[in-house]
Amino acid sequence: MFETAELGRKVSKAEFKQREAELREALLIAQGRLRKASFPVIVLFAGVDGAGKGEMVNELNGWLDPHYVLTRPLGDPSPEEQERPKYWRFWRDLPPKGQIGLFLSAWYHAPLLDHVFKRTKRGRFDQDLDEVMAFEQTLADDGALILKFWMHLGKKAQKKRLSKLEKDPLERFRVSKDDWKHWRMYDDFVGVAEHIIMRTSTGQAPWHIVEGADANFRSLRVGELLLEALTDRLDEEDAARTIALETKAPEPEPEPKSAKDNMRLEVVRSGRPTVLDTVDLEAKLAKKEYQRRLREAQATLSRQHHEARKKDISMVMVFEGWDAAGKGGAIRRLVTALDARSVNTIPIAAPSDEERAQHYLWRFWRHLSRAGRVTIFDRSWYGRVLVERVENFASEKEWRRAYAEINDFESRLVEHGTVLSKFWLHISPEEQARRFAEREQTPYKRWKLTEEDWRNRSRWGEYELAVHDMVERTSTQCAPWHLIAGDDKYHARVTILETVVAQLAEAVSK
Amino acid sequence: MFETAELGRKVSKAEFKQREAELREALLIAQGRLRKASFPVIVLFAGVDGAGKGEMVNELNGWLDPHYVLTRPLGDPSPEEQERPKYWRFWRDLPPKGQIGLFLSAWYHAPLLDHVFKRTKRGRFDQDLDEVMAFEQTLADDGALILKFWMHLGKKAQKKRLSKLEKDPLERFRVSKDDWKHWRMYDDFVGVAEHIIMRTSTGQAPWHIVEGADANFRSLRVGELLLEALTDRLDEEDAARTIALETKAPEPEPEPKSAKDNMRLEVVRSGRPTVLDTVDLEAKLAKKEYQRRLREAQATLSRQHHEARKKDISMVMVFEGWDAAGKGGAIRRLVTALDARSVNTIPIAAPSDEERAQHYLWRFWRHLSRAGRVTIFDRSWYGRVLVERVENFASEKEWRRAYAEINDFESRLVEHGTVLSKFWLHISPEEQARRFAEREQTPYKRWKLTEEDWRNRSRWGEYELAVHDMVERTSTQCAPWHLIAGDDKYHARVTILETVVAQLAEAVSK
Repeated sequence: MFETAELGRKVSKAEFKQREAELREALLIAQGRLRKASFPVIVLFAGVDGAGKGEMVNELNGWLDPHYVLTRPLGDPSPEEQERPKYWRFWRDLPPKGQIGLFLSAWYHAPLLDHVFKRTKRGRFDQDLDEVMAFEQTLADDGALILKFWMHLGKKAQKKRLSKLEKDPLERFRVSKDDWKHWRMYDDFVGVAEHIIMRTSTGQAPWHIVEGADANFRSLRVGELLLEALTDRLDEEDAARTIALETKAPEPEPEPKSAKDNMRLEVVRSGRPTVLDTVDLEAKLAKKEYQRRLREAQATLSRQHHEARKKDISMVMVFEGWDAAGKGGAIRRLVTALDARSVNTIPIAAPSDEERAQHYLWRFWRHLSRAGRVTIFDRSWYGRVLVERVENFASEKEWRRAYAEINDFESRLVEHGTVLSKFWLHISPEEQARRFAEREQTPYKRWKLTEEDWRNRSRWGEYELAVHDMVERTSTQCAPWHLIAGDDKYHARVTILETVVAQLAEAVSK
Repeated sequence: MFETAELGRKVSKAEFKQREAELREALLIAQGRLRKASFPVIVLFAGVDGAGKGEMVNELNGWLDPHYVLTRPLGDPSPEEQERPKYWRFWRDLPPKGQIGLFLSAWYHAPLLDHVFKRTKRGRFDQDLDEVMAFEQTLADDGALILKFWMHLGKKAQKKRLSKLEKDPLERFRVSKDDWKHWRMYDDFVGVAEHIIMRTSTGQAPWHIVEGADANFRSLRVGELLLEALTDRLDEEDAARTIALETKAPEPEPEPKSAKDNMRLEVVRSGRPTVLDTVDLEAKLAKKEYQRRLREAQATLSRQHHEARKKDISMVMVFEGWDAAGKGGAIRRLVTALDARSVNTIPIAAPSDEERAQHYLWRFWRHLSRAGRVTIFDRSWYGRVLVERVENFASEKEWRRAYAEINDFESRLVEHGTVLSKFWLHISPEEQARRFAEREQTPYKRWKLTEEDWRNRSRWGEYELAVHDMVERTSTQCAPWHLIAGDDKYHARVTILETVVAQLAEAVSK
């Protein structure tokens, strides 16, 4: 079954670059269509250790709009999860309609290991798989698009890969004693896997076997398969809808305003000196230096994170900043150094109705992770004193009160032992204009630019004052703000990583 | 401080009956207003063991519309909860705006016990109370109405009460070894409690000390205090709104249709024989016999539940039935025999937007409780094959598929060891008409009767067929349906209780 995934197929760097650009654009377009569709997408990765399951999840997070992607690592169940029927945690973590959920092993984890280690006999094993299929069927019947990728490596290739990973300080955390144990049992694993794939590859939830030896090949393969399945389904749905509407013509999309039209929205500065003036926007890093320090910081962070995980130290990171200040890029550089299984990125947009019916801090409390995990907030509770203040979504009384509420919330985190990092990414209005223009011209970045971004720009001065007040009132000893000079992305990324490293070093050494 | 709560105040049965009826009506009216208001109500009960905290929660659940009341027992934290900052679980369990949350001890639990048992010194204790106050302040600032009741008993009265409870097989589970241990430390407890009440009784979250010796007195006292606070706040909000609207006149409420107008909606029977024809609606129980058997079943159930709790056996009960078939009354008789701390009643109404974005079973999975708890669904996943089928909310394909999905879901529960009970409460259309008329005439029952109830009546025959199919397809060996003759409420309640007792006896004896 796996012969075709041991052919040693490769994609050259140059080819990869070109195909990746096309793929990203197409994926983003499909994802945009998905948001208006009535089904969720469930993508599951399983396979041989070292064949790139975790990396693939990171890659997709980078390609897609992360606001509508949920990563569900799902390792061993927690005690609370064990107290409930087995599938409770999988149900709990399903993506809503219009979104994509990325799952690692998930409901295949226990059946596979239990059978390889002979904890289940053949009868029970088949029953486990029946349950898996019933679950997938239920979801598919409701419209879910399900794709399952088996990431494969030959036995020799796996050995080579594990050895290579172990030698790389940045990747070392990916290799555990278990991995080697599993490698010695390679044939058992592959035998059981074969049975799983044969039994559970259904029309509604097919398995795709992907050769994992070459990162470029495997990334494109997964991405292209996802794109194809997604586009097919979207076309189907559109066709069905067209038939349903019969002759009713679709409304024409409004013409997007061009950057030039919008440029009339001039930036109005506050004119008052603010704490942002202290940020040296001239700070720069040469590419070579960037690459060296980035790699070094990532290597250290990956070691530290491993340590923190063992010591049950949680991390919470808050990213705020101007539109296009580079939050996404900085977050990606961080996530790469962390174990995807224990990181959760929470993009904060408009609240759901359940959230709206609660205190505004409720939706942040609910996302706090279990011990040893990392939670990254892309925008955060500071929205209350930034956008909600500037746009008058919150009353003056409300946002003024929020400073104390936020300080109290953050001290709860820090008292609990959580490492809290807060970053404001600062750029000049001129740099922002350059980036907006660039986004408009790069197809796969275009989705990032909205009318709102232009409107926010016209309120630059008000935001300056809001940021100033925010830093003044919420940069506390236990939870200081880090103002990051962002005109140079290299400088910003490295500074953020090195800040996290320094903070974590202190926490881990305690 | 507690002298005024040891006066031995009593309310006679006759007086109680009369004042209770008035109170219930007024509470329901206030609750109706609350639903349109923009704040949540948080009611917290703490106090001396045996002073009636749990009973008070049950009483309020009986008086109010349980659809908008959340009971939050909150004992010791689970491992998942311990992995997060202390207040995470309290945040998680807050009621949304327009609803009432009933909390037992909650955030006062640990500070009180820790200090009584000398695990915290004075400084840490005060810090704990500061955190409590900051939390309450945060909620109050956002508009939450907070009431805290300290249920008090004198030392002698507590001894008498605990002894009496112990002698009663139905109430025995309420008394633990800890209770007696605490009684011997009575003076320590009262000393610490006094300090807590003094420090944390703020204008926004005041404590009310309630004499707990006489159940009638204490119920009315709590109910009347709640009513007063709620009405005052609602009046305030209305006044503020009136000022805001200035001269704009309120829309007149539509005239409620009288029962007679609606009676024209004739019941149309299906004409086909259904499984419901097998239910003997003549079944009756005399009052004496009812009281004896009810009491006996409740006593057994309370013992069994205690046992089940120790053995980590969970229970899930499903109540379906015609409108006014007596689901609420039956559920109350069940809940009374159970430890309020481990029971969760989930009224199923329209889904939230987070729920709507998922598979229809998702919202039931999310409510499954931890081990040893009881979850009661007042209406359930069967809505899919009942109301959603009859009203065409689900397509034929969807509701037909649902039978298998439901069977699969329920086998997951049963496999996990959960005791699952499913009841269809059956009444004749004539009995329903009688009850509707009665509801219209009893002020505190009027809220139960809606236009929808009348509309459903006109579709009696369609529902008959839907129920028939439901029973045929989902009454499985592992999860059988119990069709309960409900024209006589006594008969229905006793039958339900005895059925649960029989099921649980089997599970506990395993």
